[in-house]
Amino acid sequence: MLRFDDVLAAKERLRGAAHRTPVMTSRQFNEAAGCEVYFKCENLQRAGAFKFRGAYNALASLDEETRRRGVIAYSSGNHAQAVALAAKLFCAPAVLVMPQDAPKAKAAATRDYGAEIVFYDRYTENRAGIGARIAAERGLTMIPPYDDYRVMAGQATAAVELIEDVPELDDLLVPTSGSGLLAGSAVAVRTLRPGARVYGVEPEEGNDTLLSLRRGERITIEVPRTIADGLQVTTPGELTFPIVRELVEDILLVSDREIIDAMRFMLERMKIVVEPSGAVGAAAVRNRKTDFAGRRVGVILSGGNVDMEKLSAYLKSD
Amino acid sequence: MLRFDDVLAAKERLRGAAHRTPVMTSRQFNEAAGCEVYFKCENLQRAGAFKFRGAYNALASLDEETRRRGVIAYSSGNHAQAVALAAKLFCAPAVLVMPQDAPKAKAAATRDYGAEIVFYDRYTENRAGIGARIAAERGLTMIPPYDDYRVMAGQATAAVELIEDVPELDDLLVPTSGSGLLAGSAVAVRTLRPGARVYGVEPEEGNDTLLSLRRGERITIEVPRTIADGLQVTTPGELTFPIVRELVEDILLVSDREIIDAMRFMLERMKIVVEPSGAVGAAAVRNRKTDFAGRRVGVILSGGNVDMEKLSAYLKSD
Repeated sequence: MLRFDDVLAAKERLRGAAHRTPVMTSRQFNEAAGCEVYFKCENLQRAGAFKFRGAYNALASLDEETRRRGVIAYSSGNHAQAVALAAKLFCAPAVLVMPQDAPKAKAAATRDYGAEIVFYDRYTENRAGIGARIAAERGLTMIPPYDDYRVMAGQATAAVELIEDVPELDDLLVPTSGSGLLAGSAVAVRTLRPGARVYGVEPEEGNDTLLSLRRGERITIEVPRTIADGLQVTTPGELTFPIVRELVEDILLVSDREIIDAMRFMLERMKIVVEPSGAVGAAAVRNRKTDFAGRRVGVILSGGNVDMEKLSAYLKSD
Repeated sequence: MLRFDDVLAAKERLRGAAHRTPVMTSRQFNEAAGCEVYFKCENLQRAGAFKFRGAYNALASLDEETRRRGVIAYSSGNHAQAVALAAKLFCAPAVLVMPQDAPKAKAAATRDYGAEIVFYDRYTENRAGIGARIAAERGLTMIPPYDDYRVMAGQATAAVELIEDVPELDDLLVPTSGSGLLAGSAVAVRTLRPGARVYGVEPEEGNDTLLSLRRGERITIEVPRTIADGLQVTTPGELTFPIVRELVEDILLVSDREIIDAMRFMLERMKIVVEPSGAVGAAAVRNRKTDFAGRRVGVILSGGNVDMEKLSAYLKSD
């Protein structure tokens, strides 16, 4: 199980490497939502998402010899950029296995960091298998996107910083894919703010974590079709799920329409770019998916990497 | 002439009322520009632009009886929102004279703050005349958009904060319309960082300040057609121009294309929304409009209020 000490160690390793991202508020958002919302702006994190925290902590945890041989990761995009940037900072080679339909900006940024990209078909091929094969062939160390305590510990530092800045937090909403950020955040909250409620948020179509919690075991769904391209995993993590089951209050679901509306609000009123996957928490609280009335709600805006042409399309889709 | 003491007094009045906006940096931007750039994010200011500083300082400077009778202002948008919000905070009535083609988001926000809007035709009518008539009829106090020492002193506080955060600044780039922000910033720099160069930045078509400096006196141009809707004034201010002439190094010009490219960079890479008028400084440094090589350059991102449909169009215009 992930220990809070691992989170503190990650926080130490990340000092000076990751940004301490700002916490933003919006009076207008609060009025619309009926509560006090504190946005942890991981869209302003290095490489554009919280994923840098976990990737950097994982690489920093490797012994130097292992790190020099190189790392490999599979990701719909943000974990790829994160691993690529972390590897660049450590001068280690990196191979990234990415879906063919990953946002162009994410693939371009990954390449800009000097990593090698291997594409696969999200709907027919198994990324884990491809990754494992290349790792074995080249002696690379796999940096998993979520099912890894070093990665979870890194992601958890975002929640730690948020609680440091807003100690009286009542609720925390976390975008949920493989549950690395969710599990890490829940462990941080249990120690630092016991009693606060932690919610995962999934797109309606990508409700694998919700269904798994209801069933009491991990289930697998079809690859969900949703604009939240970072939340398209089909089953919760093996290591993350027991933590989620123990510590998370519930999973909230939001529609693509609600996600776009939240993105537009943040663009128009708060002047920040949040990607669809990063906006699910804001969408959940804005549409009052559970009772937040009068509470202090933390929302992790997990990333800001979105193709400009897609963003343009979202802005017009009324 | 504007005194630095007026700026300090404004800073005191604004404490707790205006945001202390963050200063952002981007390694990628620095690489492209060949210098170290510090972005003062007034796009994240209350009401979405630096204009709140001047408007609030002006209202705070009025005696209570005068303020209670109400205020009036004319503006292409951001000053309108700023006056409307400041008036709301002081519970004073406000009338705003706005051009018919002002961005919808600006007009809507102004109305949301509870102000009354009077529209005029930017290309055929004189906003100053309309404003003066209504002010006289209703006993309202005019809050000028720039030609006012209280307003200039308020705007100057953005530069003061930037220099506090980045004391070693070599250059400061300031979007230039009526020159309120430019004149105020120049006075702040003269006291706090003498020797640093202050540049105004205008759109190529809206080069009234550049032409006036070259001529040595204020000249008037046709209403410029530019996407920088906040920089469409036709002549420098009467009170601001002598300050600009004395303290400003030069005026740099940027094209609409360069402005759009800068906006896109900030959206895509820095995850922030900057309106066209707010992006001219970034465009000037990115396109090396003068020699910034290796210098520490402050850039005021003056506002972030842009219609989503226009933003969508800019994102697609390749």
